[in-house]
Amino acid sequence: MRDMVEIGMGKVAQRGYHLDDIAIVPTRRTRDFDDVSTSWQLDAYPFKIPCVAHPSDATMSPTTAVALGRLGGLGVLNVEGLWCRYEDPTPVLQELSALADDEPTTPTLQRLYAEPIKPELIVERVKEIRDAGVTVSVRVSPQHTLALAPVILDAGVDILVIQGTVVSAEHVSTVDEPLNLKEFIADLDLPVIVGGCTNYQTALHLMRTGAAGVIVGIGADEWSTTDRVLGIRVPMASAIADAAAARRDYLDETGGRYVHLIADGNMQTSGDIAKALGCGADAVMLGEPLSRCADAPAGGAWWVSAASHPKLPRGSFGTAEEPIGTMERVLYGPSDDPDGVPNLFGALKRAMAKCGYRDLKEFQKVGLLLDR
Amino acid sequence: MRDMVEIGMGKVAQRGYHLDDIAIVPTRRTRDFDDVSTSWQLDAYPFKIPCVAHPSDATMSPTTAVALGRLGGLGVLNVEGLWCRYEDPTPVLQELSALADDEPTTPTLQRLYAEPIKPELIVERVKEIRDAGVTVSVRVSPQHTLALAPVILDAGVDILVIQGTVVSAEHVSTVDEPLNLKEFIADLDLPVIVGGCTNYQTALHLMRTGAAGVIVGIGADEWSTTDRVLGIRVPMASAIADAAAARRDYLDETGGRYVHLIADGNMQTSGDIAKALGCGADAVMLGEPLSRCADAPAGGAWWVSAASHPKLPRGSFGTAEEPIGTMERVLYGPSDDPDGVPNLFGALKRAMAKCGYRDLKEFQKVGLLLDR
Amino acid sequence: MRDMVEIGMGKVAQRGYHLDDIAIVPTRRTRDFDDVSTSWQLDAYPFKIPCVAHPSDATMSPTTAVALGRLGGLGVLNVEGLWCRYEDPTPVLQELSALADDEPTTPTLQRLYAEPIKPELIVERVKEIRDAGVTVSVRVSPQHTLALAPVILDAGVDILVIQGTVVSAEHVSTVDEPLNLKEFIADLDLPVIVGGCTNYQTALHLMRTGAAGVIVGIGADEWSTTDRVLGIRVPMASAIADAAAARRDYLDETGGRYVHLIADGNMQTSGDIAKALGCGADAVMLGEPLSRCADAPAGGAWWVSAASHPKLPRGSFGTAEEPIGTMERVLYGPSDDPDGVPNLFGALKRAMAKCGYRDLKEFQKVGLLLDR
Amino acid sequence: MRDMVEIGMGKVAQRGYHLDDIAIVPTRRTRDFDDVSTSWQLDAYPFKIPCVAHPSDATMSPTTAVALGRLGGLGVLNVEGLWCRYEDPTPVLQELSALADDEPTTPTLQRLYAEPIKPELIVERVKEIRDAGVTVSVRVSPQHTLALAPVILDAGVDILVIQGTVVSAEHVSTVDEPLNLKEFIADLDLPVIVGGCTNYQTALHLMRTGAAGVIVGIGADEWSTTDRVLGIRVPMASAIADAAAARRDYLDETGGRYVHLIADGNMQTSGDIAKALGCGADAVMLGEPLSRCADAPAGGAWWVSAASHPKLPRGSFGTAEEPIGTMERVLYGPSDDPDGVPNLFGALKRAMAKCGYRDLKEFQKVGLLLDR
Repeated sequence: MRDMVEIGMGKVAQRGYHLDDIAIVPTRRTRDFDDVSTSWQLDAYPFKIPCVAHPSDATMSPTTAVALGRLGGLGVLNVEGLWCRYEDPTPVLQELSALADDEPTTPTLQRLYAEPIKPELIVERVKEIRDAGVTVSVRVSPQHTLALAPVILDAGVDILVIQGTVVSAEHVSTVDEPLNLKEFIADLDLPVIVGGCTNYQTALHLMRTGAAGVIVGIGADEWSTTDRVLGIRVPMASAIADAAAARRDYLDETGGRYVHLIADGNMQTSGDIAKALGCGADAVMLGEPLSRCADAPAGGAWWVSAASHPKLPRGSFGTAEEPIGTMERVLYGPSDDPDGVPNLFGALKRAMAKCGYRDLKEFQKVGLLLDR
Repeated sequence: MRDMVEIGMGKVAQRGYHLDDIAIVPTRRTRDFDDVSTSWQLDAYPFKIPCVAHPSDATMSPTTAVALGRLGGLGVLNVEGLWCRYEDPTPVLQELSALADDEPTTPTLQRLYAEPIKPELIVERVKEIRDAGVTVSVRVSPQHTLALAPVILDAGVDILVIQGTVVSAEHVSTVDEPLNLKEFIADLDLPVIVGGCTNYQTALHLMRTGAAGVIVGIGADEWSTTDRVLGIRVPMASAIADAAAARRDYLDETGGRYVHLIADGNMQTSGDIAKALGCGADAVMLGEPLSRCADAPAGGAWWVSAASHPKLPRGSFGTAEEPIGTMERVLYGPSDDPDGVPNLFGALKRAMAKCGYRDLKEFQKVGLLLDR
Repeated sequence: MRDMVEIGMGKVAQRGYHLDDIAIVPTRRTRDFDDVSTSWQLDAYPFKIPCVAHPSDATMSPTTAVALGRLGGLGVLNVEGLWCRYEDPTPVLQELSALADDEPTTPTLQRLYAEPIKPELIVERVKEIRDAGVTVSVRVSPQHTLALAPVILDAGVDILVIQGTVVSAEHVSTVDEPLNLKEFIADLDLPVIVGGCTNYQTALHLMRTGAAGVIVGIGADEWSTTDRVLGIRVPMASAIADAAAARRDYLDETGGRYVHLIADGNMQTSGDIAKALGCGADAVMLGEPLSRCADAPAGGAWWVSAASHPKLPRGSFGTAEEPIGTMERVLYGPSDDPDGVPNLFGALKRAMAKCGYRDLKEFQKVGLLLDR
Repeated sequence: MRDMVEIGMGKVAQRGYHLDDIAIVPTRRTRDFDDVSTSWQLDAYPFKIPCVAHPSDATMSPTTAVALGRLGGLGVLNVEGLWCRYEDPTPVLQELSALADDEPTTPTLQRLYAEPIKPELIVERVKEIRDAGVTVSVRVSPQHTLALAPVILDAGVDILVIQGTVVSAEHVSTVDEPLNLKEFIADLDLPVIVGGCTNYQTALHLMRTGAAGVIVGIGADEWSTTDRVLGIRVPMASAIADAAAARRDYLDETGGRYVHLIADGNMQTSGDIAKALGCGADAVMLGEPLSRCADAPAGGAWWVSAASHPKLPRGSFGTAEEPIGTMERVLYGPSDDPDGVPNLFGALKRAMAKCGYRDLKEFQKVGLLLDR
């Protein structure tokens, strides 16, 4: 366990480190770029790059989910998003794309997301992705999992993502019958990714639900305001490393079940991705960078699910910015911008080569440096 | 005792941590929002939320004190403020509300507060609050306590707040007969809240005066300049935790007297409130957020008492900003702004739910995280 | 000795703390403002406040040196400054006062200081100060001490200040005959203040030269660029505390010689002054705040000696700003600005009262707090 | 070995310190400026100042390489730069010099560097430098070393610089036959400087290749984006000190081979140079400051090699700024700017004098201070 600091008499806090605090360190060996692989596999599904889409309506439409799948990543559509609330969400997305900084953006989001979810649209959207022949994945919140699962499963998804800001394996309620993740996952015969979580203990408990993957982090990037609103903040370097310790302990306790860690939080440059994987993540969940592909659903605008909460929004709306390039260029380059995007995964490969590593599992052992 | 650092040979300093340095940490359990309670009780007075008004003229008029009481918090009127200096303070408040950033704001404050305090107005203002049927509380400074106490007590208050920037249990003077807090409080039969204080020892001594509540912190927010002027700065996370240790020790030493801690300093978002309570406070003293309610006395302007000091002002005047919404909305939402206000106590409840806690006393045990 | 950190294998650095890093801490006792004294005495010369002028032409003319003396501080005229280079420096000071930010300020300084020092002007200026009946003090650099000392001593000064950026007790030269401070001071029968120095060892060696006072720090404030130019930076809190340890050790080694510490570096607010004294200084050397008195020589412009160096200037020129008020008001108030100036020493007195101390020597024991 | 920090359970990071984090500390002795020497010698080549040019086209043309040599430093021409791609690079350099901030600078760099390298131009450029009678040095990347070495060696250089962002002694490839540095250097009879490297182990392995000098750092300054793109960041103070430990260990292991350390990264002021040498470097590699000499090839524009990478640029283009002065003035002054340049090596000499050191090797022992 890392440093505990006594912030006052008898009250301790645990130190946490952010990705910005650290860097990866080259070793005495370098490796040829073409000898490096960034491939990743979750359950039976192989991916060319360790890239899962953050299921925001700003990144994922059925079309972009397919595009990401074809490019070697995992697209995830949010079944509680605009595509499953509106028969034709195009005008809604255009309205969001056209919002300016001096307009009331959060109230607009709240109004547009007040439209009810329509189960028949879930079926339709899933079919559209499945028909394209890529791995099909959708996201549902823990609160709606029991209600929407039958529709989702019937529609035919490959990987189910159950994601809330903070998800625990033990939700206590005297009001509703809460979702029992362990029983729910045991009854399914498809891999489930569940999260986010922020520490060792929660990660371990989520692994014990039978999940194939656990999301580490709460998707907090520079647009997130979870810290200001709830007082909750996740230092991703520490959260990933702690969850990786849970992965090792669970591997031992089960005699070999390997649960994948998907890091979700402030991954905006290729350097961030390299650091997250170097801390022990198996894959990263990308949000904002995908929202800035030429073909992104909301034309460059960016927001997370919590930003549209009807009573307590917890994320700023990022008004549309110029697209960076096609999704292929954002992921694989070439780049003509030195700022860490595009060419996110070409850069990852080069970072691995310069540090002397051949594949992602090896790269989790890369040395780390902490400023000061 | 926490870290002592040798800043030079033989000279040590104690490390202190601010609320911004820390965050609260979810546990492996989450809880239903509707199962969470934010109720608080001081002596015989129950409150729906752990919210005490900072007794600034920018937040508290007789009307807003009543409004806060009806909404479940504790309003506190400053008997040394404008309402007890002017028969009709409305034009004065309007003048302050209309001040612009390029005008000399501090000299205006100094001029307006030069008007003498009128005891008969204290009686009138207290009556106005009492007649509304809410818990009545007023603030007086230690220097004026002996002189004004008879008037205040006759007027009929429920809870007396004796508050200066820094208050000690042992004020030494060869000039005046100083206020002996212990004797003064022993003679009263109403609960007294006293402060501010900044460390374990002073908190403990203030508890021993018989106070029902102790104010931790000196109300320093981003408008405060106490650090620049006096070299005094209070890291609230540490100050609250240290005072909580004093509360435990005093509980033990008295065999059960529980003194409440009211945190006063830089509480501007719901995240700040959650952190302060997580460090061990029983309630928070809110200033600037209350000054921005639609019905605030000075139309959105904000200043603390020390800002009007005739010789050594120690706080900047914040010129009027747009109101955020009604007091009810500021406290309970709904919010359409993701920046941590409004919906201060709805957000607190949600933070408690996400961390798995049922009530405020339990929540004082929430895990803390320290950046780096 | 405080924390040594290994910054690389086998290479250590000593941690240093700046005044901004720390704050002073109230105790369980407070004290009446009128019971507090800020008086200070150096050798036979008593002062109402522990205030020595930084001998810049921007702060000290014969007139302002007298004014400061009458107000209870110690004025120090620079015998290598403009008043001893020009018969009538008024037009020169006016030129500097009128300089704008977009003009080449450093070349102007260099040109104006190229005028030779005129010994007869030293005599005249000293006479002017002495005739006013205040304590007379001038500053000379170590390089010019041997040449100018006869003139200075003949002119009749009370306290001699030998000040360079960094002064050591052992200057080695194969080129010139260096100043032997120990012999030089032994031959004088007036008190000498010498510095700046930055650490325990140099402070101790300077004390052993027989100096009555040692300057701690190199006068670096926000206009200083010594760090960028020379790589030298002085964390004042640590430097003062280390020098105070040297003072204690020297007191012991001599069986009672008390050498005063005058802190010189980034003292811009009353809070800074309180912190410097709380770290162990006996007095502070004030620069920029004095340059902004209504009657300052250069009308509000500010620069240090090193800023006019002909080949390697090490300080930015601060163009003239609005005066804050008369010197009396800057030192004693009243203030109508909450930013830590004016009323520098009224604020110090109040800080001492709030922390419960009666005099400056006691106040050197005030508790310190370190952020994080 | 310095502090290892557990950033998460079972995952450690090593603390690293930047030059900005530290300062050099004067001792109890000062020394006469004229008694200080900044001379340096690499193999048989003596230099008046420890200054090696960063081989960017923004700093080095054949003309400026000669000028630097005549002024006592080491000029290094990049054989993969514009001078060896274009018969007459003048129009190309003018185009870069004229680029404005709102133009697409990186694409322009990429386009201009797409022109192939012409071996005959290498011969011509080297001849031009050699004919001027100064020490001749060129830079080649590890990837092109085997192909270009014959041309370079025939052309007649004195010192060969093999430099890539990160160079290791063991490059692994299943695709190409990699450069074996040890064999390559053994076969040469001229001194080789090789790097950059970032830690003890790589430095030691590079020393064992037989190199005369090792470059520490990756040339990252404020225009570099290696951290954002690759997640790699080099805290120079720690990297230099670690490499100095490797130098000591290699000296011991070989019974006396002294390998010189050339620090390359964020050396922009004379203060930075003093700190790098104080950490243990033998010389510094200067980039941006040289690009701002009056006679710099690209008229004040600045970029590093990696900034023109065709697929993954890792450095911003700095558009042309006003020249600071002639190269002589940048190196030796006089200065009329207090910001740490010009007069880079006059300032170094003064810093050494103020800290009491006579020569560079002694100065490597200067005390260091770490903020906080």
